[in-house]
Parts: sequence; C-alpha cells; structure tokens
Amino acid sequence: MNPDISRERENASFNLEILTNILDGGAEKTRRRREIESLVISDPDFQHEDLNFLSRSERYDAAVRKSAQMILKLREYGISDPEEIYSYKSCVHRGRPEPLDLHLGMFLPTLLNQSSPAQLEAFFMPAWNLEIIGTYAQTEMGHGTHIRGLETTATYDPSTQEFVLNSPTISSIKWWPGGLGKTSNHAIVLAQLYTQGKCHGLHAFITPIRCMKTHMPLPGVVVGDIGPKFGFDEVDNGYLKLENVRIPRENMLMKYAKVEPDGTYVKPPSDKLTYGTMVFIRSMIVGESARALSKSCTIAIRYSAVRHQSELRPGEPEPQILDYQAQQYKLFPLVATAYAFHFVGQYMSKTYHRISGDINQGDFSELPELHALSAGLKAFTTWVANAGIEVCRMSCGGHGYSRCSSLPDIYVTFTPTCTYEGENTVMMLQTARYLVKSYKQARAGQQLTGIVSYLNEPQSRIQPHSVSSRPTVVNINDLASLVEAYKFRAAKLVEMAAKNLQAELQHSKSNEDAWNNNSIDLVRASDAHCHYVVVKLFAAKLSEIGDTAVHSVLSTLALLYALHGVALSSGDFLQAGLLTVPQLAQISQRLKGLLSELRPNAVALVDAFDYRDEMLNSTLGRYDGNVYEHMFEWAKRSPLNHTEVHESHHKYLKPLRSKL
Amino acid sequence: MNPDISRERENASFNLEILTNILDGGAEKTRRRREIESLVISDPDFQHEDLNFLSRSERYDAAVRKSAQMILKLREYGISDPEEIYSYKSCVHRGRPEPLDLHLGMFLPTLLNQSSPAQLEAFFMPAWNLEIIGTYAQTEMGHGTHIRGLETTATYDPSTQEFVLNSPTISSIKWWPGGLGKTSNHAIVLAQLYTQGKCHGLHAFITPIRCMKTHMPLPGVVVGDIGPKFGFDEVDNGYLKLENVRIPRENMLMKYAKVEPDGTYVKPPSDKLTYGTMVFIRSMIVGESARALSKSCTIAIRYSAVRHQSELRPGEPEPQILDYQAQQYKLFPLVATAYAFHFVGQYMSKTYHRISGDINQGDFSELPELHALSAGLKAFTTWVANAGIEVCRMSCGGHGYSRCSSLPDIYVTFTPTCTYEGENTVMMLQTARYLVKSYKQARAGQQLTGIVSYLNEPQSRIQPHSVSSRPTVVNINDLASLVEAYKFRAAKLVEMAAKNLQAELQHSKSNEDAWNNNSIDLVRASDAHCHYVVVKLFAAKLSEIGDTAVHSVLSTLALLYALHGVALSSGDFLQAGLLTVPQLAQISQRLKGLLSELRPNAVALVDAFDYRDEMLNSTLGRYDGNVYEHMFEWAKRSPLNHTEVHESHHKYLKPLRSKL
Repeated sequence: MNPDISRERENASFNLEILTNILDGGAEKTRRRREIESLVISDPDFQHEDLNFLSRSERYDAAVRKSAQMILKLREYGISDPEEIYSYKSCVHRGRPEPLDLHLGMFLPTLLNQSSPAQLEAFFMPAWNLEIIGTYAQTEMGHGTHIRGLETTATYDPSTQEFVLNSPTISSIKWWPGGLGKTSNHAIVLAQLYTQGKCHGLHAFITPIRCMKTHMPLPGVVVGDIGPKFGFDEVDNGYLKLENVRIPRENMLMKYAKVEPDGTYVKPPSDKLTYGTMVFIRSMIVGESARALSKSCTIAIRYSAVRHQSELRPGEPEPQILDYQAQQYKLFPLVATAYAFHFVGQYMSKTYHRISGDINQGDFSELPELHALSAGLKAFTTWVANAGIEVCRMSCGGHGYSRCSSLPDIYVTFTPTCTYEGENTVMMLQTARYLVKSYKQARAGQQLTGIVSYLNEPQSRIQPHSVSSRPTVVNINDLASLVEAYKFRAAKLVEMAAKNLQAELQHSKSNEDAWNNNSIDLVRASDAHCHYVVVKLFAAKLSEIGDTAVHSVLSTLALLYALHGVALSSGDFLQAGLLTVPQLAQISQRLKGLLSELRPNAVALVDAFDYRDEMLNSTLGRYDGNVYEHMFEWAKRSPLNHTEVHESHHKYLKPLRSKL
Repeated sequence: MNPDISRERENASFNLEILTNILDGGAEKTRRRREIESLVISDPDFQHEDLNFLSRSERYDAAVRKSAQMILKLREYGISDPEEIYSYKSCVHRGRPEPLDLHLGMFLPTLLNQSSPAQLEAFFMPAWNLEIIGTYAQTEMGHGTHIRGLETTATYDPSTQEFVLNSPTISSIKWWPGGLGKTSNHAIVLAQLYTQGKCHGLHAFITPIRCMKTHMPLPGVVVGDIGPKFGFDEVDNGYLKLENVRIPRENMLMKYAKVEPDGTYVKPPSDKLTYGTMVFIRSMIVGESARALSKSCTIAIRYSAVRHQSELRPGEPEPQILDYQAQQYKLFPLVATAYAFHFVGQYMSKTYHRISGDINQGDFSELPELHALSAGLKAFTTWVANAGIEVCRMSCGGHGYSRCSSLPDIYVTFTPTCTYEGENTVMMLQTARYLVKSYKQARAGQQLTGIVSYLNEPQSRIQPHSVSSRPTVVNINDLASLVEAYKFRAAKLVEMAAKNLQAELQHSKSNEDAWNNNSIDLVRASDAHCHYVVVKLFAAKLSEIGDTAVHSVLSTLALLYALHGVALSSGDFLQAGLLTVPQLAQISQRLKGLLSELRPNAVALVDAFDYRDEMLNSTLGRYDGNVYEHMFEWAKRSPLNHTEVHESHHKYLKPLRSKL
C-alpha cells in the first residue's frame, strides 16, 4: 500500500461503510452487490487479456464469449431479479456494452409487452433460449430523433397474407442497432405500415434476417457491421437493408394494433403505452451519469493523492498534486456532482417505480411531468458528466491519456448517452415545452402541482430592477436559501423564454418559427430548471441521513455543488436580482474554504463509491496507490512489445539508409 | 453534388478565394500549399487503407512506411523550407503525428543548436541520413512539468572519461517520448549531471539505445512501447530504463555547458538560450487549435447543411438541421472562434519571428512578454478548441460517433495539446505570474508597455459600485467598445487576484502558500487576459482587410465571437460594472440576430478553410455532401464484414443453444 494513500484514509472524518450503504440503498444491497461482484470476478470463465491490447474483432469475440457464459451462469445461479441481472452483467463486461444488450434489453421485453398470446407462444421461448437472437431496429441512416420521418415500409399483401418489407432509399437503411451487424438472426423492424393503400404509421415487425442454421443473411437482406466507432468496440452496431423481404402476417406485433387477414387495419386503444419504456430508460441514464462520473473521480482523486509534482515551497519535497487548489477546484466539484447525480438517479428510479404502478392501472396523470423531468435530467446530467470525465482525465496529466488509466474508455463508452435515447438538445426542448405550457397555465390562473409548482410563485419577487430596494434573497452559507435562489432563477428564465416566445409571435410566420427562434432561451430555461431540481434533491437527501459525520461531509459537498453552480452562472443570478456583486466575491472566498474543508476527506469520498480495482481497470485509480509499478507492467504486455524489433524496421527504415 | 450544399454555396455573399488567401497569408501561399497537397495526394506511395480499419501495429507500420517515403521524396523534390516541410508532412500523415516527429522536430534541431562543432561533425550527418534515428527523452514516469524533479542521473567517471547513466527508481523511467519505443536507436537523454561529487542540474546526453546493426536494445537499456493510448496510434511513445549505461564524455551536448576530461564542470553563459524553442512550440500550438477547430467546423457545418431532421412546420418536409437555432448556436460561435484563433496564430508566428531575430542578437527584452503570452494563449486556445471539437462531433448526432466522421480522430489527436508542452493550468498560472508582476510594477509607478499596458489604466474606471452613477461603458454593437470591455474585465480580474493574494499573505505561511490559495483567481485572471488578447487581435485583423464583402462577414463573425464570450461570462462583466442587466437581454437578442445573418454564409465560411476531402477524411464532411452513400461504402469495407458470419457465432452462440 502506497503510504500517501494510507495516510489519506486515516484522515477521513466519517465511516465509509455507512456512506456506501446510503449510495447502494441499504446495507443488504451493498452486501448482495459485493457478493455478485465476487462471484463474477473470481470466475475463471470471465478472465481475459486487457481489451485495449486486442483488435476490434478479438474484442467482439471476447464479448460474445463472455455473454454466452453469462447467460448460462445467470440460469445456473438462478439470478432473475432485474437489478441483480444488471449488476451481474455490468460486472461481467466491466460496465461496457455487449453484443446481447439489445436482445436482452429490447428484443425480449418488446416481445413480452407487445406480442399477442399466439406470438408469445411462437417467439418467446426460442428467443429466451437464444435460438432466436434479436435486436431492435428503429434508427435509420437518415432518421434518428424524428421517428415519423422513418422510411422503411411494410406493405401488406393479402394474397399471400404477408408483409413485404423494403428499404426504399439509402437513407432508409437501418443503422446503429446494437447486435444487428453480426450477432442477431432476427430484428424487430420499425416500419411504416401500408395496407389497403393507406399508411398507418410506424409499427413493429419481427423480421428474420439470418438463417437459423447457417447464420447466413437471408435473401433480400443486406446486413453488416457499421464499422469502427469512437468506442463500443465490443458491439456490432449494424446496418440492415431490406429488399422485398416477405414475412408472415403473424410477425407484426399485434397486442395492440392489428392487421386482419384481409388487410383491415385495427387501431391500438392508446398511444401512450410505449411511452413508459422511454421514460424508464432516460431515468436509468441519470444513474449512468453518476456512475461514469464517480468512476472517473475515483481514478483522478486517488492518482492525485499519490502523484507528486513541482514545488509549493522552495526546498521542500514535491507535494501531492491533490494539495494544489487548482486541482481541488477541478475535482472536488465533480465529486459533489457525482453524489448529486447519484441521489437524483435514486429519486428518478423510485419515482418511476411508484408511477409505473399507476400506468399499469391506466392512470397516466403523473406521466407528463416525469416524462419532462426524465428528458431534461437525462440531458443535463449526461452533458455535465461527459465534460467532467474529460476534466478528470486531463487532471491526471499525460498518464490520463494512456489507455491504462481507463479514462479514455470511460469517456468513449459514456459519451453516446448525450445522443442516444433522445438527443440532448431535443430533450432540453421537450422539457422546455412542458415548462412553457405550465407557465401559461399558471398565468391563466391554474394552480400547478408537482415540481413545476414554483411557476405559481408571484413573479414580483424576481423583478430584475429591484435589487437595491430589497434585501438580498440568498444566504450563501445556507443550502435552503440557495435552493430558493435556484428556484427563482429557473422561474425567471422560464418567464423570460415564455415572454420572448410571445414577443416573437408578433414577427414570426408561425408558432413553430417562434419556437425555433427562441431555442437558445428555451434550452437555457430547461437547464436552469434541471439544475434547480438537482440542488433541491441533493438538499432533500441530507434530511434522510442520520449519521452525524456522514451528514456533515455530505452537507459540505452539497454546499459546494450549489455555490459552484452559482459561480459558474453568476450572470443569471445577478440578472435575476438574486445576488449582489459583493456577494460574488464572498462566494468565491467561500468556495476556497470549502475546498480546504473537503481536502482531508477527498480519498474517503471516492472510496465510498466502492469500485473494485477489477471494475475500474485503471492503473492510476488502483486502491493501493502503487501506480508506477503497474503502469510499467502493463506497458510491457503491450502488443508492440511482443517482439524487440518491429518488422517495419527491416521493411522500411533499414533499406532507407542506402538510398540517402 | 448534393443539391442542398450547392444551394448553400450559391447563397454566399463573398468571394471564397479572397478569404482563403487571407487565411493562408497571401495568394502565393495558397497556390504553393495546394501544389504540395496535390503532389502528396496524387502520389501512389502514400495511399493506404483507412487507418481505422487497421490494428495498432499495422497503423504504426503504415506510418513508418510513409515517413520513410516522405524523407526520400522531400530530398528528391528539394523541399527544404521549414513551412513547406511541415505542409508536406502533415499532408502525408493527414494531420496525424508520426514516428519520426521527434527525430525531425527535436533530435536534429537539438543537435544543431546545442552541439559543439566536433559533435556536429560526429553526429549530424548520420542523423540526417537516418543511420542515427533519435528522440528527445525528457519526461519521466513520475515527472513531467517540473523538470527540476527529474531523477535520471549521468555521473561522470574520469577514469574512463565516460558518463554512467542510470534510472535509479521506477518513477525515473523515461516515459512518453515519441519514437522511443521501437523506432529510435539513439535518444537525447535529459539527466542530472554529477561530476566531482556535485550535482549540476539537468543536461542533455546523446545516448545510443539500440544496436545500429541489429536494432536490438543495447546492454543496460530496457526500452519499449508504453502501450495503447486514446489516440497517437501511429506513434511508438516509449519507455527507457537505463542501468549503468556508459557513454563517452563527448556525448554530452557541449555547445554551452561542458565537462572537462578531468571532470571539471564549466557553466553555460546564459540560461535563457533554450527558452526560445519552448515559446516557439507553444505559439505553433495556437495555430494547431485553429486547425483542429476549423476542420471540425467544416465537417459539422457541411453535414448540417445536408442532414434533414424533424419538422419545423407541420406538413412541410424535414428542414436542414442547419436551420435550427440551437444548432447554429452550437456551431457558428465555433466557426468564429476558429477564425479568431487562426488570426491569433498568425500574429504569434509573426511576433515570434520578429523577436527571434533579437534573441539571436542576445536581446531578450521582449521574450518575457511573449513567453507569458504564448503560455496563456496555448492553454486558452487548446481548452476552447478541445471542447469545441466535441461540440462539433455531438452536433452531428449519432454519426459523429462513427470513426467515418473523422471527428473522434481529430479529438484524440488534438486533446494532448492541453497537456504536453506545458500543462494548461500550469501555463495559465505562468501567465498569471507575469500579470501580477506587471500589475505590481504599474502600482509602483512604473509605466508598462506592450500588451499588459492596460494595467496602467487608472483603476477608478472599474470601481464595482459605481454602476448606476456612470454611463454604461459598452456599446454592444461596436466591436471596439467590446474590446475595451474585455480589457477592463481583464484589468479588474488581475486586480482582484493581486489584492486577494495580498490579503492572503497576512494569513499564509509563505508567498507560495498565498499563491496556491489563490490559484482559482489567478487562472481566472489569465483567462480573461487571453480572451481580451484574442478579441483585440481579431478586431485588429479586420482593419487589414480590403475586400468589402469579406470584411463584412468577418466583422459579423468578430462581433459574434465577442458577444458570445460576454454572454458566457456575463457575471464578470456585470461584476466589473461594464454591463447593465437590461443589456444582457439585448445581447441575447443580438446574438440571435447574428446567427441569422451568418446563416447564408455558413457553408462558404468553412469552405474557405479549404480542406481537401483527403485531408478531412470524413464521410460527413465531404465537399459534395453525398454523405449516406459513402457511409454505406465505408461500412462495407469494415474488417468485421470481411466474412458474412463471424467465427464467434460458431464458437460460442451456436453451442450455447444446446446447453439451455
């Protein structure tokens, strides 16, 4: 054990285990998580060379091998709770996506939720036993966010009682679905349904794409891997071009909408039924933001505790880089953010489960708010975490750039969350739509409930010109007061966006143009709303914490999170009259004080995230702090070192000499 | 040609070629650059498969092959002007670093500048003819920025007239030098010189590391590749562990400092002699920031012109995503930034060349200012460009994540600039040191000259509490007025940092502690200083431009750049009393107006950067806009598609079925 990092741990002011239990949601959950981790990590079937040393094809191969093993072992051990399956899976693949993700996470659930009883009978067991391996093919090369724009067609032919599937253009080729390129033999294809000469919009069709025996593509099917990406090397994101592919009528998912044998179309009873899944996935992504950021912080903080550099005082030994204020200022607010997002993730998951009961009963009343919240928070947390991972990486200097730090991998694995499941700017605008609608309702005298109820507040409190005439709203040392300030800032920005929208309507040709011409304000309002929610939920979490020492350190983190946000957007708070200019200087001093207060607990705060070395897979983030020895060992195993002299020397450099 | 993009080009309000000439520094330079590009791109010896489809070893191999060809051809064509060599080289390697970079860019120049005549005689021609291939080994595993902390030792043994080189610890292993792992047979090793029992600090030693005949590592030398990184796949960044490696006394670079045969140490005449190179490299990096960002903008803007998505108005066709205000707000300020950085890069290069004449004459008077400026601007521009590349990537939605977009490559190739040649935060603090020193000199009555002369201004103009009592400083429609505002903001932040430093000295144990405890303020002051310089230089460039149409569009860009920066840091400007709250709303409206003004010229503005398709290597950024067809062609060539059925199917998935 590196003595620097031992010393850090001795200095912690709180009991780690208590905090870890809070993060896991209880001591029993911590115990079970660790049990599953041990099960996987000690299992020789899941061992493999560092993926960074393998080619993409080898990485895909290793992932398929581990996924196949995983399926067997989950059944062998009888692990069936969804949370435990998730935990086991992310341990097997060390947090990376894998080729069967879409089969397990989309194909099987869609079959379960959207099949008629006869379809369930026909398809579910073969899929459960991996005779059918499926994916979910929605996105096309030319169409992502706007699903009404999808071009793939499924035209019903009553003479044979088949659907004829086609990709009529290049841009209609299905593109991106995970597991589509090489792994799957079936796909649930989203296509525009045509029957009796009419288009009935998007429907889902179970489409065989490869032969169940030979695994060769079926006639009319052009399928393959879309090529290397920034990350996701283990996943065969694929393309699929359909040329007059015929499937039986029974392959359209018919639990809700139906096509009768004669081609008569029967409408689904409600269009909100698939809404819930989207909300669920976006809520889950908030938790992913917390995990990606907490892993990155763990690596950066531990490394900063053992890395010595430069001199603070002449003649003294080089200090730990964690002692530099500039380093603390990069990392501690991110640790605070990781905690904040973790608690927001817990809240979202709890809320979803609470509401999903209602949804199953046909009560959709709370869904719009959760939908708006999950969209905005998905965007807000992924953007912040995305940038934060890179701050962590760069705070490790050159070594952060090495694959042995694991930080490049964390980044490339995480960054797609900003784009998939709803592109972030589009998400922010969806939330803005809800906010503006709520604002208008409140102005029309309706009493709002739920998280937007702050839009009910009399707006006179946030007149921009009344700064000097009333006492300052904010007490910068009081979290509750800061929560209020975030609330008023959000209210102010929602109001500004709504008013600009109103003003723009006088010049614009249409509502849509006015909306587009105010997107900047609308995104900003959403962002402020989400920021308010995060600060509020962090503060609320504190009230649940009994242990004094843990409460104390989390309170400091929450204050840091809130004040750091105010400092970064100080213009907003000044503009809204929530802060005075002299307070800005006080905040800046207070932030420095908070960094010093947190310094002794920095390593303990990331230890509490409780990532095993095998899960982090980072030489810089090792628990024992023995960074350099392990970097050297890792480098020696690198493929370029398999031979002392690289063949290019003999092929190019040696012959060159004689020519010069 | 995609009709959308043709239409964009028809709408441009200015003559492209005039703007391209301005960017190149004259029509003749444009001509010559294009000539060199054609020479390389049409040369069959430089063709190769997309590097994204190759393993790292294959990529290294391809790079060595091209570098060897390049050396031959440069001599064949008689290209010897450094700028032209740079141009040829970056065309051969398409902007990527390559294995001989350190040989050409550091080993040869260091030999030239620091060798005694006898050493030049002995080493230069073999190195010129690539019998000796060298690198520059300074950074150690445990030591980067702080070169006094380097641990490698060179101990003089007068009995044999040799130096004995050692890596005494794990952390002293040389780590990171490009070309060290596999390519080089020599290294200039930076080591602490010990002679006659005394340490004389860091000196440079020409050290053979591999046998000139077999290329095998020499006895006592442990050398290899440091393993895969985020990017730089073509470069064998290496490690080097020295165990009692003996080199002749003549291998210490002895133009300045010397060790006599008996071990007597002779001091160098000045310690500023190596200072210039550092300044030069950092100035060059400013230009790299402009290039990386302008490439990324070219890709994102062209793609946004041909990508259609969602609906603005119900029933109408999907609009180009470039018509969305949110997309414009992401990209247009980055286009403006790319232009700004390009002009700053031109200024830095011109200034360096002007001053380097003086330096060679022994006149170092202007060096401190240039040193401070190059440090800060290196950090400022690389941070902004680094984040900007990722904004461009994500603005392309999912397809930006594909390697075919080239944006992941641009990012991983560029991002190390934030760390190497001086870690950015350290650079900002160096600039802050100069600013604080200048501020103190001004307060002591000294009249400052040069770029910091604004610190001479009477500070009464920027009293924070006088907002209401005096007219607003800024005219938000006038660039000159905005330059003034940036200046006063910088002055204010430098003053605040200096005052906080002063106040802290009353509590801190030492100057150093006070400095550390105010790093946040100091970095912020440097940042504001650099931002001022960039706005100022952009404004100054406008006055050189004769063509009315080009002047007009660049003026709009400059105003966008300046106002966007004010909006992002509005708290600073409000705090300094340079803006009023109502002006903030005006700025926000004006920004929207500027986006609309620039919209018709967006494609032309990136076309003017004049990157050939072969240089961008991006399916999304193609000049002809035919994105989807070429994405499909590219994907089909991907290695995972070399067989229809991946072997993992037979190995793991098929056998799995029978076990379930």
